[in-house]
Amino acid sequence: MRLGMIGLGKMGGNMAARLREKGHEVVGYDVTSDQRDVDSLADLVARLEAPRVVWVMVPAGDPTARTVAELGELLGEGDLVVEGGNTHYVDDRTRAETLAAKGIGYLDVGVSGGVWGRQNGYGIMVGGDAGQVEQARPLFESLTPDEGGGFVHSGAVGAGHFVKMVHNGIEYGMMQSFAEGFELMAASGIVDDVPGTFESWREGTVVRSWLLDLLSRALEEDPELAELRGYAQDSGEGRWTVQAAVDHAVPAPAITAALFARFASRQDDSPAMKVVSALRNQFGGHAVTRSDEDNPSA
Amino acid sequence: MRLGMIGLGKMGGNMAARLREKGHEVVGYDVTSDQRDVDSLADLVARLEAPRVVWVMVPAGDPTARTVAELGELLGEGDLVVEGGNTHYVDDRTRAETLAAKGIGYLDVGVSGGVWGRQNGYGIMVGGDAGQVEQARPLFESLTPDEGGGFVHSGAVGAGHFVKMVHNGIEYGMMQSFAEGFELMAASGIVDDVPGTFESWREGTVVRSWLLDLLSRALEEDPELAELRGYAQDSGEGRWTVQAAVDHAVPAPAITAALFARFASRQDDSPAMKVVSALRNQFGGHAVTRSDEDNPSA
Amino acid sequence: MRLGMIGLGKMGGNMAARLREKGHEVVGYDVTSDQRDVDSLADLVARLEAPRVVWVMVPAGDPTARTVAELGELLGEGDLVVEGGNTHYVDDRTRAETLAAKGIGYLDVGVSGGVWGRQNGYGIMVGGDAGQVEQARPLFESLTPDEGGGFVHSGAVGAGHFVKMVHNGIEYGMMQSFAEGFELMAASGIVDDVPGTFESWREGTVVRSWLLDLLSRALEEDPELAELRGYAQDSGEGRWTVQAAVDHAVPAPAITAALFARFASRQDDSPAMKVVSALRNQFGGHAVTRSDEDNPSA
Amino acid sequence: MRLGMIGLGKMGGNMAARLREKGHEVVGYDVTSDQRDVDSLADLVARLEAPRVVWVMVPAGDPTARTVAELGELLGEGDLVVEGGNTHYVDDRTRAETLAAKGIGYLDVGVSGGVWGRQNGYGIMVGGDAGQVEQARPLFESLTPDEGGGFVHSGAVGAGHFVKMVHNGIEYGMMQSFAEGFELMAASGIVDDVPGTFESWREGTVVRSWLLDLLSRALEEDPELAELRGYAQDSGEGRWTVQAAVDHAVPAPAITAALFARFASRQDDSPAMKVVSALRNQFGGHAVTRSDEDNPSA
Repeated sequence: MRLGMIGLGKMGGNMAARLREKGHEVVGYDVTSDQRDVDSLADLVARLEAPRVVWVMVPAGDPTARTVAELGELLGEGDLVVEGGNTHYVDDRTRAETLAAKGIGYLDVGVSGGVWGRQNGYGIMVGGDAGQVEQARPLFESLTPDEGGGFVHSGAVGAGHFVKMVHNGIEYGMMQSFAEGFELMAASGIVDDVPGTFESWREGTVVRSWLLDLLSRALEEDPELAELRGYAQDSGEGRWTVQAAVDHAVPAPAITAALFARFASRQDDSPAMKVVSALRNQFGGHAVTRSDEDNPSA
Repeated sequence: MRLGMIGLGKMGGNMAARLREKGHEVVGYDVTSDQRDVDSLADLVARLEAPRVVWVMVPAGDPTARTVAELGELLGEGDLVVEGGNTHYVDDRTRAETLAAKGIGYLDVGVSGGVWGRQNGYGIMVGGDAGQVEQARPLFESLTPDEGGGFVHSGAVGAGHFVKMVHNGIEYGMMQSFAEGFELMAASGIVDDVPGTFESWREGTVVRSWLLDLLSRALEEDPELAELRGYAQDSGEGRWTVQAAVDHAVPAPAITAALFARFASRQDDSPAMKVVSALRNQFGGHAVTRSDEDNPSA
Repeated sequence: MRLGMIGLGKMGGNMAARLREKGHEVVGYDVTSDQRDVDSLADLVARLEAPRVVWVMVPAGDPTARTVAELGELLGEGDLVVEGGNTHYVDDRTRAETLAAKGIGYLDVGVSGGVWGRQNGYGIMVGGDAGQVEQARPLFESLTPDEGGGFVHSGAVGAGHFVKMVHNGIEYGMMQSFAEGFELMAASGIVDDVPGTFESWREGTVVRSWLLDLLSRALEEDPELAELRGYAQDSGEGRWTVQAAVDHAVPAPAITAALFARFASRQDDSPAMKVVSALRNQFGGHAVTRSDEDNPSA
Repeated sequence: MRLGMIGLGKMGGNMAARLREKGHEVVGYDVTSDQRDVDSLADLVARLEAPRVVWVMVPAGDPTARTVAELGELLGEGDLVVEGGNTHYVDDRTRAETLAAKGIGYLDVGVSGGVWGRQNGYGIMVGGDAGQVEQARPLFESLTPDEGGGFVHSGAVGAGHFVKMVHNGIEYGMMQSFAEGFELMAASGIVDDVPGTFESWREGTVVRSWLLDLLSRALEEDPELAELRGYAQDSGEGRWTVQAAVDHAVPAPAITAALFARFASRQDDSPAMKVVSALRNQFGGHAVTRSDEDNPSA
């Protein structure tokens, strides 16, 4: 089918390519990319025929909000916006209602698979109206893996981004688990071959997984990860998962631990640990480390 | 090759079967099983020819300790004990030294794969001397998956059980991550199809993994896990992982959270939360729940 | 000075009493209490002379929002609203701006001390304009402890409720710490006199604190807390503290652990632990506990 | 009464001074201190009359073990060793039994109060036989605060050090709670007066405590703790508390979080976070920070 794809970065660009390989006609637009087929959203809409399907794959937050708002001006009755970014699920309902007032459909879609999705297919999680899901189904079928699976219509508007958020929260916890295991093996002085151990776990074990495949791949390139800083960004979904857990009174200690470990990794110095150090000095006369001293254990 | 297998339970029995399918001659012994080929350890040793290989696959702790000690009396120079149970790695060195004094070899082997290993192959993690590893290599090759992988010689004596312990710690963290995600989706009121969401994640996503395959299988049988109590045992490796992390000053918050969640699941009532309740009552006059009242939120 | 006090419950009623003891004229109003001096907010406002000071001490959320909104209609230029409830700090700014448009002042005040405050004095944390703080200072001085201290003007509007929120977050962490210590001593089989141990800690030790005094008092009445359920409510500030920590990328693992422990205490059964149990059964053939079975460890 | 005091450092030296002020005759010995009254343990024992009381206040671990062993050679029937260091409770029983074989008594005593104890009195927690406790009671009464309290006989041998360990675990959790609160207030941009806020909490609030007094004192000297590194040591009891919790299947997430935060504070770079960074790069093409780059958020 013919569709518009807005956003041709690492995710949108690869998805457009995969859709074209599967025979769809993609009209691509991006603010900056020289891969774009049209020079404006208006051009893009003009190149499609009603009922139009436009997939939005731009950074979450303001860029997505602006794009969806602009599409609300350009599209009409029966057209469909598929919002595939990492949007906070709480923003979906308002967007859907605004568009619905003009007869425009809205699906919120979580997309997983990273840069490997073009080749392996993507995991696609959709929230919205069943009829609108049917309208876009040919796209979902082409984006998901060739061997089947990878698709769920998880609920009403918001449910696609909600389950993608939870997916990413789980991902945080899994990554943290592997990370703790790595550090413990490296610190133990007992394990001679840490990369080989991870590699061996890829078959036969309980922890076999795609993340383990990737970790093994990373360790093949840099067996001690010596070239990396222990510095981890977080991108929104982890925070939202913790906040949703708090909102719903769900204990989520492992996912939260993973998020806090990333926060701590980005601090040059921990204000909290200054307090602990100050208190130990106050009551016990324990030595403190002054800010102009090197880390004594380094 | 010919070997003795001591312990014919869920693990040892399946491993013996797999080894036989691959052409090995297994002389099996078990305290209770009617599958046993001999009636005593002495018989088993008598049925093997030097240099003998005896694989011990009995419950960790006392049963393993007694079996290895008895083998130390029965075996001789050049024979090899392969200890495949979930032994605490700190116990391996003494055992190896005791046996070495008599010229008997000792390999500590972590085995992963559960009841599926007979069919899929096992993950095998070995600690010990390289020459002894060669002696048992035909067994390792037959136990690991047909498609290759699944084997590591991770270090000296103790390293096999150490990495198996870490493997299980990681497994705790991964299971906890999926568990938190399940609970959050179920509590949210947003997700109409929780089992279908997990099923969809099996392809294309970042969290795809064998544990996810198993979770999806469990949800197919019981979509809300309504037939289960939220009650989780722990079997030693999780505790040892946390203790090793503490010993080596390695922060392991996600794995520890997983362990503590299991502890809490086994309490009918939380003594700690009685304290919190008592304190809230003391300072704020907040209502408490008496022990003869039903849980007010239930 | 003369003031209006809206809300005559455990907090407001005691505060009104303390203010009266210190010589202030309190005109009290409450939706239900028979202690009230007037029958409506309009009556209350009529009984005060400009510039009026009205202290709002009603439940956080809708009751507070409605009361402040109604006061916005009744008060005028130069009057002052002191909002002393457990309001989420993010709501203060809008309220202050709405009132400021009419020339009405607004202070957000966190009040700590619980039911003991009438006798011991309260901790008072104020956010807002310095001039308005002066306007209400006689009240703050009478509410804080006789021996001095207990007062801070912590910043602009919102800062009073923010630091009260953080205070309560810290309180969660402290209570959880004592709670874990209690449970560990009780479980150890080593400590013959748990209540006596807590009692002894009240003098000379590093952990001496008011919460410890209260815990010791509770244990005097019920040495094993046998009459209580391990069931702990949470009242908003703990959740907001965690959410603020997440918003500001501050690792807050101890406070979050305290919050999650309360969440877990209110569950009859843990959905998350059902997942762990189901997975253990899937891969290891481990026994599960059916929902119609008693807790096997109970 | 007359006693021997072995170890005249920050703790033992202050305790000896306090005991002397209360009228006891202290014969002091230390390996290095020029404050010592005798030059050897043998001299010290010779200066006491049977039944002798010797208080051991030397660093935990080997120094304490050696001292107690040597005293076992020098003392005799009816004498008493009071071991007041931060000994791991699991070591007490063996020591007591070894001494008991010679008729020598043994009390394990946890001492809290830090460098302030000389002036304020100490918290004293004793494990051992009731008769032996009576033998040393005059010392306990002089060491505890003048206003009473501060003493518990918590159980049989080992119970004194066990409850001191738990005390320190609770202390870890309380310090971490204050530390998280400090960091959150500092990061919020909302609180103008963080030191003043802590100072105000010292009266009237729920979190008032000695640790808060000390924190307020530290912030008076250095309002942003700018002169300190966020670097916190741990001294054994925190680790032992977590290990005891794991041994007894007691969830202790807040105390454990406090311990792990100290571990992390001592790392120049987090191996675990290298793994997270590597994985994010692998699946998402996310940028990594190379080890020769500065922390991008610094």
